[in-house]
Amino acid sequence: MYASMTEFSCPFTRPPGPLLLEPIVRTALEEDFGRDGDLTTDLLVDFDQPMEARIVARGSGTLSGLICAATAFHLLDEAVTLTSGALDGEAVGSGTALATVRGQARALLSAERVALNFLGHLSGVATATRALVDAIVGTGTRIVCTRKTTPGLRMLEKYAVRCGGGFNHRFGLDDAALIKDNHIAAAGGLRLAIERVRAGLGHMTKFEVEVDTLEQLEEALSLGVDTILLDNMEIAELQRAVALARGRAVLEASGGITIGTAREIALTGVDYISSGAITHSAPALDVALDF
Amino acid sequence: MYASMTEFSCPFTRPPGPLLLEPIVRTALEEDFGRDGDLTTDLLVDFDQPMEARIVARGSGTLSGLICAATAFHLLDEAVTLTSGALDGEAVGSGTALATVRGQARALLSAERVALNFLGHLSGVATATRALVDAIVGTGTRIVCTRKTTPGLRMLEKYAVRCGGGFNHRFGLDDAALIKDNHIAAAGGLRLAIERVRAGLGHMTKFEVEVDTLEQLEEALSLGVDTILLDNMEIAELQRAVALARGRAVLEASGGITIGTAREIALTGVDYISSGAITHSAPALDVALDF
Amino acid sequence: MYASMTEFSCPFTRPPGPLLLEPIVRTALEEDFGRDGDLTTDLLVDFDQPMEARIVARGSGTLSGLICAATAFHLLDEAVTLTSGALDGEAVGSGTALATVRGQARALLSAERVALNFLGHLSGVATATRALVDAIVGTGTRIVCTRKTTPGLRMLEKYAVRCGGGFNHRFGLDDAALIKDNHIAAAGGLRLAIERVRAGLGHMTKFEVEVDTLEQLEEALSLGVDTILLDNMEIAELQRAVALARGRAVLEASGGITIGTAREIALTGVDYISSGAITHSAPALDVALDF
Amino acid sequence: MYASMTEFSCPFTRPPGPLLLEPIVRTALEEDFGRDGDLTTDLLVDFDQPMEARIVARGSGTLSGLICAATAFHLLDEAVTLTSGALDGEAVGSGTALATVRGQARALLSAERVALNFLGHLSGVATATRALVDAIVGTGTRIVCTRKTTPGLRMLEKYAVRCGGGFNHRFGLDDAALIKDNHIAAAGGLRLAIERVRAGLGHMTKFEVEVDTLEQLEEALSLGVDTILLDNMEIAELQRAVALARGRAVLEASGGITIGTAREIALTGVDYISSGAITHSAPALDVALDF
Amino acid sequence: MYASMTEFSCPFTRPPGPLLLEPIVRTALEEDFGRDGDLTTDLLVDFDQPMEARIVARGSGTLSGLICAATAFHLLDEAVTLTSGALDGEAVGSGTALATVRGQARALLSAERVALNFLGHLSGVATATRALVDAIVGTGTRIVCTRKTTPGLRMLEKYAVRCGGGFNHRFGLDDAALIKDNHIAAAGGLRLAIERVRAGLGHMTKFEVEVDTLEQLEEALSLGVDTILLDNMEIAELQRAVALARGRAVLEASGGITIGTAREIALTGVDYISSGAITHSAPALDVALDF
Amino acid sequence: MYASMTEFSCPFTRPPGPLLLEPIVRTALEEDFGRDGDLTTDLLVDFDQPMEARIVARGSGTLSGLICAATAFHLLDEAVTLTSGALDGEAVGSGTALATVRGQARALLSAERVALNFLGHLSGVATATRALVDAIVGTGTRIVCTRKTTPGLRMLEKYAVRCGGGFNHRFGLDDAALIKDNHIAAAGGLRLAIERVRAGLGHMTKFEVEVDTLEQLEEALSLGVDTILLDNMEIAELQRAVALARGRAVLEASGGITIGTAREIALTGVDYISSGAITHSAPALDVALDF
Repeated sequence: MYASMTEFSCPFTRPPGPLLLEPIVRTALEEDFGRDGDLTTDLLVDFDQPMEARIVARGSGTLSGLICAATAFHLLDEAVTLTSGALDGEAVGSGTALATVRGQARALLSAERVALNFLGHLSGVATATRALVDAIVGTGTRIVCTRKTTPGLRMLEKYAVRCGGGFNHRFGLDDAALIKDNHIAAAGGLRLAIERVRAGLGHMTKFEVEVDTLEQLEEALSLGVDTILLDNMEIAELQRAVALARGRAVLEASGGITIGTAREIALTGVDYISSGAITHSAPALDVALDF
Repeated sequence: MYASMTEFSCPFTRPPGPLLLEPIVRTALEEDFGRDGDLTTDLLVDFDQPMEARIVARGSGTLSGLICAATAFHLLDEAVTLTSGALDGEAVGSGTALATVRGQARALLSAERVALNFLGHLSGVATATRALVDAIVGTGTRIVCTRKTTPGLRMLEKYAVRCGGGFNHRFGLDDAALIKDNHIAAAGGLRLAIERVRAGLGHMTKFEVEVDTLEQLEEALSLGVDTILLDNMEIAELQRAVALARGRAVLEASGGITIGTAREIALTGVDYISSGAITHSAPALDVALDF
Repeated sequence: MYASMTEFSCPFTRPPGPLLLEPIVRTALEEDFGRDGDLTTDLLVDFDQPMEARIVARGSGTLSGLICAATAFHLLDEAVTLTSGALDGEAVGSGTALATVRGQARALLSAERVALNFLGHLSGVATATRALVDAIVGTGTRIVCTRKTTPGLRMLEKYAVRCGGGFNHRFGLDDAALIKDNHIAAAGGLRLAIERVRAGLGHMTKFEVEVDTLEQLEEALSLGVDTILLDNMEIAELQRAVALARGRAVLEASGGITIGTAREIALTGVDYISSGAITHSAPALDVALDF
Repeated sequence: MYASMTEFSCPFTRPPGPLLLEPIVRTALEEDFGRDGDLTTDLLVDFDQPMEARIVARGSGTLSGLICAATAFHLLDEAVTLTSGALDGEAVGSGTALATVRGQARALLSAERVALNFLGHLSGVATATRALVDAIVGTGTRIVCTRKTTPGLRMLEKYAVRCGGGFNHRFGLDDAALIKDNHIAAAGGLRLAIERVRAGLGHMTKFEVEVDTLEQLEEALSLGVDTILLDNMEIAELQRAVALARGRAVLEASGGITIGTAREIALTGVDYISSGAITHSAPALDVALDF
Repeated sequence: MYASMTEFSCPFTRPPGPLLLEPIVRTALEEDFGRDGDLTTDLLVDFDQPMEARIVARGSGTLSGLICAATAFHLLDEAVTLTSGALDGEAVGSGTALATVRGQARALLSAERVALNFLGHLSGVATATRALVDAIVGTGTRIVCTRKTTPGLRMLEKYAVRCGGGFNHRFGLDDAALIKDNHIAAAGGLRLAIERVRAGLGHMTKFEVEVDTLEQLEEALSLGVDTILLDNMEIAELQRAVALARGRAVLEASGGITIGTAREIALTGVDYISSGAITHSAPALDVALDF
Repeated sequence: MYASMTEFSCPFTRPPGPLLLEPIVRTALEEDFGRDGDLTTDLLVDFDQPMEARIVARGSGTLSGLICAATAFHLLDEAVTLTSGALDGEAVGSGTALATVRGQARALLSAERVALNFLGHLSGVATATRALVDAIVGTGTRIVCTRKTTPGLRMLEKYAVRCGGGFNHRFGLDDAALIKDNHIAAAGGLRLAIERVRAGLGHMTKFEVEVDTLEQLEEALSLGVDTILLDNMEIAELQRAVALARGRAVLEASGGITIGTAREIALTGVDYISSGAITHSAPALDVALDF
C-alpha cells in the first residue's frame, strides 16, 4: 500500500507519514475492537474470503483523509489495495467514488467504521475550510486554523485545513509564542513582555502579540512587533488598523468569523483570518462503504 | 480536587473515573505542549503567581465535560480547585458561569485551551442530543448514539450523549454483535447467521439484526430475534414494522434522523432511534475562560 | 505467516487477530529479553543459521494457543514458517507433534520459552474447560468462565475456554451489568436497583442479578429479570429454582463447581454453570520444543 | 497507603516497589474496566459512600501479594487504608482475616476482582513453593523457580516464590547465560562454547551449563565450570554426579520434580532443585472480600 | 517537592514542567531498575530508615538539571525534600554543595545514580555552552545549539544550553523549515524552493536558507530571505557576507566552531553562531552524592 | 534490510535485535519529527524520488552503531538498502566510507540527523573505550563500563563499549548486587551484609563488595567474597591488594581512571578497571551523510 500512497496525495499539501499516522489510526482501531475484536465478523465471515468495496461520498464537499482510511484497512490486512478515485483536496459530490478497496472481507468489514470516521470527520473540516476560503477568494487574505481542535486529532485537522485551501497557525504552545493580555499583565506591560520574549527566544521561533484596541496596536507597532493579532474588532476598526500598520506588520483578524462576515473582513486588507469553527464545529461529510 | 468531583456529576449519569479519563486528558495536554511546553507563559508568568478565572458559556446548550476541564487544570497543578456553577446535563445560557477555577496562573493559562476544547466539544454533543431528545419528548422512544464517533473520544462522546438525555448503543465491535447484510451473505442466509451467533455467544452478550425490508423483518421475528434494527425505512414502513413485531422484539430505527423527522419516526412506536449526527456533526458549544 | 494462520484455527472459534495479540506477545518477549537480549544465544549461535524444530505435547489435553507461539517466533524472524500438526481445540496426547517451526536458529532458541509458556498455559485452560464440558455432556447446560482470570491474559484465557468447548461470560465490568447484594443494598432494594439499571443501560447491554435464596429469585422473576445467577445453592435448591423460573429466565449456577459436582448441577436444568477454576487453577499442559 | 506498606512486608523478602508494580496493577484494572468502567457500580452506588471490607482466606496456604491488592484499591481511591492481618510469607488457614480495607464503596467494589485475582494467584504460587520447600526441609538443598512463568507476571511470581521460601533462578535471557545442548552444538562443542562465553561476558554475569550425562558433567568440571544443571537424571545418576563434582561446582537438578520425588532428589546432595510447576501449575488460593 | 521547585529555577530560563519531565526520568529509573529493582538495597536497607545526603560538585562548571535529580528522588519517595544550594545556570566549583536531600534511605540509594547521570550530563552541556558564550562576550553575537543532540534528551539538552547562556535553534523538523542544498536541488533552484515554502507555510513558522557561497547569499537576499545560515565559511567570507547583508537578514554561522575560533567569527558581525559540540561532545560534570 | 544486517556485525559482539532496538530509534525519530514531520522536505522533495548517499567519517576512531542508522532509515522507508563499508568495532579514519544508503530521498533526508546522532555518539563511546583498551594492551586486565551512562541509552552504550574492546559490568540495579559502604552501615557490618545477601540471592546472581581500605579487603576475603571493587586506591595500595588476594577474588579497580593512569593500574595485576568516562564523557565521532 505504501508504495502507492502517492495517489492519495493532495496536490498542494502532504499527509503525515506512517511514523506519525499509524499510532493514531491504531488507537482508533483498538478503541473499536476493545478487548475481543469484531464478534460478528469473527463468527460469520471466513478468514480468507476476498472482498471488494467502494468508498462513496453521499454528500458534497472537499475530500480529506484517504490515507487514514487506507491505513486502517492496511493495519488489519497488509495485502489490502486501495485505488483512489479522487484526491485529498478535491471537490466531490454525492455519489462520487472516492476509492476502491480490495482485500480480506474480514479486514474490510472490521475496519470499515474507523476508516469512515476519519474520512468523514477530516473531509468535514476540509469542506468547512474550503467554504471560508471560497468566500474570500481574490482578496489575497489567507484563512488559518487555531488551537481550537478536537483533542488528539490536531495533526490531522491541520492537514485537513490545508486540504481545504487554508493555512496553519502555530501547532501548539511550544512552536511559537502568542502574547495575550494576561501575559502582558503578568509581565508588567507590553514593552516588558516584548523584551522578555526577545531575550528568551532564538531566531527560529516566531511570536505574535494579541491586541484589542488601536492604542495597543500603535504601541505594538512602535515596539517593532511584526505579527499582530487583532481580536474581535469591528470592520471600521480593522480598516483603521490596516491603515495604521501600513505593511509594517502581518495582521491577523480573529473572532466571530463566519461565511457571512469573512469577505468583508478580508476586504479590510488584513493578511490572515483565523477561524476555530472550521475545526471544532464542522459537520462530517457523509461517506459510506458499498460492498 | 477528586474529593470534590461529585459536584460536577450529572444527576442521571456519571463521567469516567480518573483511571480512564486522565490518560485521555494527558494526551491532549501533551499534544498542545509538544516538546517544549508553553513558551509564552514560561517566559512571562512567574511560577507561584496565583490566579482565579471563570469558565463562562457564550452560547446556550447542555453542559458536558466539566470533569475533563477539571482534570486538565489538575494535571498541571495538583492544588487547583474548581467550583462548579452548573452540572453536566444542565441547560446553560450565554453568560452562565459554569465554574470558577483557582490555582497557579501558569497552570490556568497553559491548560486553558485543552480544558475548553473538551468542554466545548462534549457540550456540543450533549446539546445536539438534547435537541433530539426534546423533539420526541413524551413518545416513550429513546435516542441512542452509534459508533460514528470522533476517533479516540468515543468514551467521552458516549458520556456526553447520556448528559443530553440519550442512551448508548454498543460501545464497539466486541461488546455486542450486529448482524448486517454482508454478514448474512457471508454466512449463507439469515437462519444460518443466527444459528452461528447463538452457538458462539454466551448469555451476557446481546445481538441485533439489521433489516432493510418487512420480509427480512418477518424472517427475523420468526427466528426469535428480539432486537432488530430497521435501516432507512419510510414512515409507513416503520408503522407496518411495529405492527408486525407486536412487542416481540425491541425495534431501532436508523438512517437520516433529523430534528425535523425524529418525532414522526418516534410516533410510529419504535423503541429506539439511533443518530450518528449527534456525535459526528455537533457544533461545539462556545465556552471561554475569563480571567 | 499471517497468510497461513487459518491453519491454526480452532474449528468452532477464532483467536484474536494480530492487532490485539501482537502487543501481548511482544510484552512477554520483552519481559524475557530484558534490556540485553538472549546473552547465551547471541554469543554462541550465528545470525543466519537455519533451524527446524517441532513443538511436541508431553501430556494429554486440549490444544490452545498455537497462534501465540507462531506470533512469538514471527516477532523475532518475519520469515519463520509454522506448520501445524494439530488445531486449537483438538485433543492431543503425549508425543503428538503440534507444529513444525522453521527459521533462524537464533529466533527459535530465543523465543522458545515464551512460545511454550503461552501454549502450555492456554492449553491448560482449554484442557480444564474440556474436562468440565465433557462431564456434563448431553445435559444441554453450558460451561462459562468468569472474571477470575490471570491479570493481563483475560482475552487469551477466554479464547482458551472457547477452545475447550466452553462459553464466555461478560468480558469485564463495562460490557454487561451484574447486580450483587452490595449493589442492591446500596441502591435501597432490588426493585430500585433494577429500575436504575433499566433507566441507565441501553438496549444492547445485558444485565444479570445474583441471588442467594429462592425468595430473592422469586422477587427477581416478579420484576421481569431474565438472567439470574444462583450463587452457591444446594442441588435441591437449584431444582426448586429451575421449577420456579419455568423458563422465564436464563439461570446460571455458580460456586464450588468441580468435575465431581458439575453433572448433578447440570441435571437440575440450569442453563449455565460458571467456573473460576478453569481459568485460575488450571495446571499447564506440558509442551516442549524438540530441535 | 505507601507510608504503611511495611506492614505487608514478608519478613524474608520484599515486594517490588510502586515504580515497577503500579503499571502492572494498572494494566489489570484497565483490562477489567475496559472502555466504560464498572457499569453496575456506577449506576447503583453513590460516589462518596464509605465502606469497610475484609479480605478473608477460604482455603489454607501461604500468603503472597497483599501489596498488589493494596495497590489496586489505592489506584481507584488514594485515601483507601488497608490494615493487614497477616504478612506475605505467612501460613494462613480458611477463615483467616488477611486484611481490612476502608475507603469509598465504589473503589472497593470496582477493584475487588482485580485485587483478589492477584492475591489468589500469587498466594497459589507461594503455597506450591512452600509445599516443595517443606518437602525437603533439613536437607540444605534450595528450591528455585524457572522461566516457565505466566506471561507478563514473572516479576510477581518470582516474588511469590520467595514468599514461599524458594529462591530465584535467572530472571530472563539477559541477566545470566545458560548453555544448553543446542548452544553447544552451534558453537562446535562444549570447550568452544565455554571459551566464547568467557570471552564475552564480564565478571558480574553468571553462566551455567546444562548436562544430560555424567560424561558431559566430567567434561564441564574439567573445563572449570562452577555451576551445572543436571537435566532429567535418575536418582542414582544424581548421586554419582554429586560424588563426581566433590564441591567443585554448584549443582542444580531439574526435570519432573514433584512433592513425591523432591526429598529423594535433595538427599543426593544437589544444591538446587528447580521446578516449573510452582509457577505454571499452581492452583489459586481461594480468597474473598467480605463486605 | 513541587511546591518548592522554584528554588531550583535558573534565573533566566525555566526547566520543563512535570508533565514533560516525569516520563523521561521515569524511563531512566526503569532502565536502571530493570525487572527486579535494586537487589542490594532491598536486601540490606530497611524500608522506613531515614537518610540525608548532599549533592556535591567535584569539578567546576555551570549547573543544570537539579529538577531532574529532584524528580528522580521524588518518584521513589513522594516525601523527599530537596533543598538547593545553587541554582541551575550558576557557576559552581569543586566542593560546592549543590543540594541537600532528605528522605527514605532506600529511595536515596536507589535513585542516586539516575539523579547524578542527569545532573552530570546536563551540567556538562551547560558548562560547554557557557565556555563558548564567555568566549564571545561583548560581541552581541548569540550562541545557539543544533539538532545534533543525544537521542531522547533533546528537550533537556536545549534547556541546559539556555542554562549555559545560549539560545535554542528550531526544536526539530516540524517547528521551522531549513532549506539546504539537497532541498534546493530537489525543488529546481532557490527561487522555486522559496516560493514553495512561502506558499505552504503559515505566518507563524520561520524558515531559514543555508548557503555555502556569497553568490548564493546574494540570491537569497535578493529573494527577500531574512534568515540565512552561512555554512563553513572562512572569516574573510563571513565578513563579506555581513557587509553584503547590511542588516537585511539575520545571519547564522556554523561549522567547526571551537572556543579558539568563536570570538573571531563573532567579531565578523554575524548574529548567531551554532555549535553541535556543546550538546554532542560535552564531557559530564563530576557530581557525587555524599551520605 | 534485516536479511543483510549481518554485514554490520561487529566481529566480536552483536548489536541488540530489532525487538529492543526499534523502539529506541523510533522514539528518537518521533523526537525530531514532533507533531508535523519534516516541513522542509515535505514541501520540497517529491514522494517517490530516489536518492543515494554515503555515510562518511570526518574524524578517526572506532565505529559503532551502524545498525541504529540502518534502523532509522528503514523505519521511514522499508525498502532502503544500506551497504556497509566498515564494521562496528573497526578503526576508521577521516574520509572512510562507512556505508552507502539507497532509498527514497525523503526518507534519507528526514532520517539523516537521527541516524548520524546515534552513529556519532556510539562511535564516540567505542573510540574512548578503544583508547583505554589500547593503553593497557598486553596486561591481561580488562576495561569495563559502569552505570554512569546517558539516560535511556544504556543498552546501546554498553554495546558500544564492547565494540571498543571493553566488557560490561552489571546492567542495572537488578541483575547483580554491589554492596557499598552505606549498605554495610545499614546492615550492621560487612559480615551481616554478606550473610543477608547470601541468604537472599539465588545461585545465578553475582554480588560484589566495594572496599576503600586494605583492612576492608582482608575482611571481605576472610568472608569468602570472590569479587571485590577497590575504590579510589593508590597504585601502591592496589599492589598490596593484589598481593593480599592471591587470586582468591576477582579484583576491580575504579576511580579517576584516565588514559594516563590506566596502564600503571593494570600492571598492578587487578583483573578489571572500570571507567565512567568512556560512556559519560566521550566526544562524538564526526560522521556525515554525503548526497
